[in-house]
Amino acid sequence: MTHTFLFCDISVVSADETGKVGCRMHSWVAVKDGRIAAVSPTESAARSALGREPDQVISGQNRLLLPALANTHNHMAMTLLRNAADDLPLHRWLFEAIFPREARLTSALVAAGSRLALSEMIRSGTGLSADMYYDHEETARAALDAGFRLNLSVDAKREGPDGQKHPDPDLLGRNLRQLGQHPSGLLRVSLLVHSVYLYEEALYPQLADMARQMDCPVQVHIAETEKEVADCLARYGRRPAAQLAHFGFFRTPTLAAHCVHLDEGERAVLANPLVLAAHCPASNLKLGSGLADVPAMLQSGVRVGIGTDGPASNNNLDLYRDMRLASFLAKGARQDASLLPAPQILAMTTFEGARALGFTDSGRIAPGWQADLQVVRTDSPGMTPLGDPVSALVYSAAGSDVESLMVAGRWLMEKRELKTLDEEKIRFEAVAAARALA
Amino acid sequence: MTHTFLFCDISVVSADETGKVGCRMHSWVAVKDGRIAAVSPTESAARSALGREPDQVISGQNRLLLPALANTHNHMAMTLLRNAADDLPLHRWLFEAIFPREARLTSALVAAGSRLALSEMIRSGTGLSADMYYDHEETARAALDAGFRLNLSVDAKREGPDGQKHPDPDLLGRNLRQLGQHPSGLLRVSLLVHSVYLYEEALYPQLADMARQMDCPVQVHIAETEKEVADCLARYGRRPAAQLAHFGFFRTPTLAAHCVHLDEGERAVLANPLVLAAHCPASNLKLGSGLADVPAMLQSGVRVGIGTDGPASNNNLDLYRDMRLASFLAKGARQDASLLPAPQILAMTTFEGARALGFTDSGRIAPGWQADLQVVRTDSPGMTPLGDPVSALVYSAAGSDVESLMVAGRWLMEKRELKTLDEEKIRFEAVAAARALA
Repeated sequence: MTHTFLFCDISVVSADETGKVGCRMHSWVAVKDGRIAAVSPTESAARSALGREPDQVISGQNRLLLPALANTHNHMAMTLLRNAADDLPLHRWLFEAIFPREARLTSALVAAGSRLALSEMIRSGTGLSADMYYDHEETARAALDAGFRLNLSVDAKREGPDGQKHPDPDLLGRNLRQLGQHPSGLLRVSLLVHSVYLYEEALYPQLADMARQMDCPVQVHIAETEKEVADCLARYGRRPAAQLAHFGFFRTPTLAAHCVHLDEGERAVLANPLVLAAHCPASNLKLGSGLADVPAMLQSGVRVGIGTDGPASNNNLDLYRDMRLASFLAKGARQDASLLPAPQILAMTTFEGARALGFTDSGRIAPGWQADLQVVRTDSPGMTPLGDPVSALVYSAAGSDVESLMVAGRWLMEKRELKTLDEEKIRFEAVAAARALA
Repeated sequence: MTHTFLFCDISVVSADETGKVGCRMHSWVAVKDGRIAAVSPTESAARSALGREPDQVISGQNRLLLPALANTHNHMAMTLLRNAADDLPLHRWLFEAIFPREARLTSALVAAGSRLALSEMIRSGTGLSADMYYDHEETARAALDAGFRLNLSVDAKREGPDGQKHPDPDLLGRNLRQLGQHPSGLLRVSLLVHSVYLYEEALYPQLADMARQMDCPVQVHIAETEKEVADCLARYGRRPAAQLAHFGFFRTPTLAAHCVHLDEGERAVLANPLVLAAHCPASNLKLGSGLADVPAMLQSGVRVGIGTDGPASNNNLDLYRDMRLASFLAKGARQDASLLPAPQILAMTTFEGARALGFTDSGRIAPGWQADLQVVRTDSPGMTPLGDPVSALVYSAAGSDVESLMVAGRWLMEKRELKTLDEEKIRFEAVAAARALA
């Protein structure tokens, strides 16, 4: 039997059934069998939903309860490359600093970097993430050990006798079964399609076909830089999103990272309920890629989530920073303070993000939804006075204000202590791993 | 006799005598009589500079030592209005949310808000700040109690028998003597000149004359919004910075807040060693004011510091967030990742900022300089692996990574505990004060 929990007299920040985020003060929330059993304005109703004494009672005084955050674009093990090379133009950064180090990666190093990323995300209120990197099995194992929800992209290509890369449906099928249908329910599998610029032209329609036939989601980078757009136009006569659609993509759920440089036609292409644009404001700024026009995407009907991108181009995995930045950037670039208001930002990083990662019952605090929850303290000076709780979460809170994080009704962090990961060992191994790559 | 301190085997991040910020690992730093007595690669040299056993020895393991940060634009007591009204255009925000609340301010409320701001800044590594608000004596008293360095602007106008406002040199003189020459050395006094748009035309040359005659620094908002520029052009035929120069300003040290909308001629006006542009990226974005072109200012020879602006338009006083944002914004807006590199950002917020606030011997870690220091822990997951320490401070660190803060050789925070302020009382009073304004 799993643990039961009762959160008492707490302010609950969540989307309602229409997707609108707001705060309900003085609520009692019951958790049972890894899911939310009740959200009620009275203690008695919440208790009766449990049917027995709760194993743990959590006081809501000076606290907010909200869903665990969902990070929609990440390269987790790049924690090992954090602060290794900054203030460089993208091309020099990749070719002089990142690629030479990545050439020395081993699966053990990827595991060490992934565990470090997990500990950092858990500490800052993120319980779900996308990931796109090497040796995804190592990252999957680390996520399972941590009790963390992960949408992993799998590089399902192999070299054929013709010396060309071809889709490998066996590999993808095995991953979809073994990881995507893991009994924990913590994992989802996507097909890794790096971008429109990295592979031979013939491979793209084959990958798109395989994804559609196997009903497999896709993770792909789209329109990160102006150079990518110019190169794609020169090569194909179409811009990246349009060209990917032409190849046959966007027929299964797709996490489209970046989307910095889109034209109106591409926004129309991406205005597809299967697609979520993973906006990565910190990384786009830091690498000099530019400013994605999120208000225009939303206006066109594109769904938008928020991602940190890899920790080597952020240089952090605290999604609270990216939430604040996403809102500020839209307001400042358009000189309109009403754009991307706090409730909309929280919707993007809770149920919108969770759904796009394939966890369709995570991201809201309502009966039957997954108990993917975080407790945020409101008694730090920077959260005082609290004012509007949703504004406070997006504009004032830091990851360090997160006190506890639960996924599927299991504490991953409780009162700032990690419960599923050995943090000291992880840090020690990560430092050694970074040295091995330096 | 004051306490003496020895920081042992610590990585020191500071500007050198040329202003270039870098890191010296394995250093010993001795503090005596509120100042830095020695910075040495050997323990023996640092000890002999003290001349006796240190009262306290601080281990440098997993820690960085850097100057306390300097916040160059702030309205401290606006902590009380935090998250009270967000996502509103500037005009509605001011007239519907802020001004009606400020009309109810009392000196006791300003004191409560100022103390809250001090506790928040100290917790996030800031030891020096500018301030521009009402009832500056209350804020001065709070800063003295806290042991915090403050450059206060004084509203030195009075209404004459003609019903017009006139400069009040007596009031300014009294403040310059009583506060600016306070024996603690913690306070500096400026003349408050709100902006080019708030006063009658006749008053500006009089204020400029008074500042020059009394050799008094000035704090002023310049070119925060496009509307300000348009109105100024319509009223005076000149843009704000040019018009203020025409009125006779910029002949004493001047903190010029915002500078979002400057043309080349104004950048030439502000390229004056007496002037520091206080760049407030978070506030400028959040209120929809726009993106200041800091690289262009620097290119023109304008000195630039960083400010949070008031906590109602930020909504936080953690300058680490603004450092990161300032760098990212310049890189992203210009699509050039090499702009505003981490060492330049830290120079702005340490010795450049401190000097502009009038604390010319704060902001470097070198013999004879003020012991205005902070210790940052590097063993959180988000700071692991550390990589380049200067990058780590600007791109990865959060205010919560600051472990201890010292001003003039006195701990204001030690191991996350405030030493000069009663944090619980401050929070309680601030919540009550915010309620009184709501």
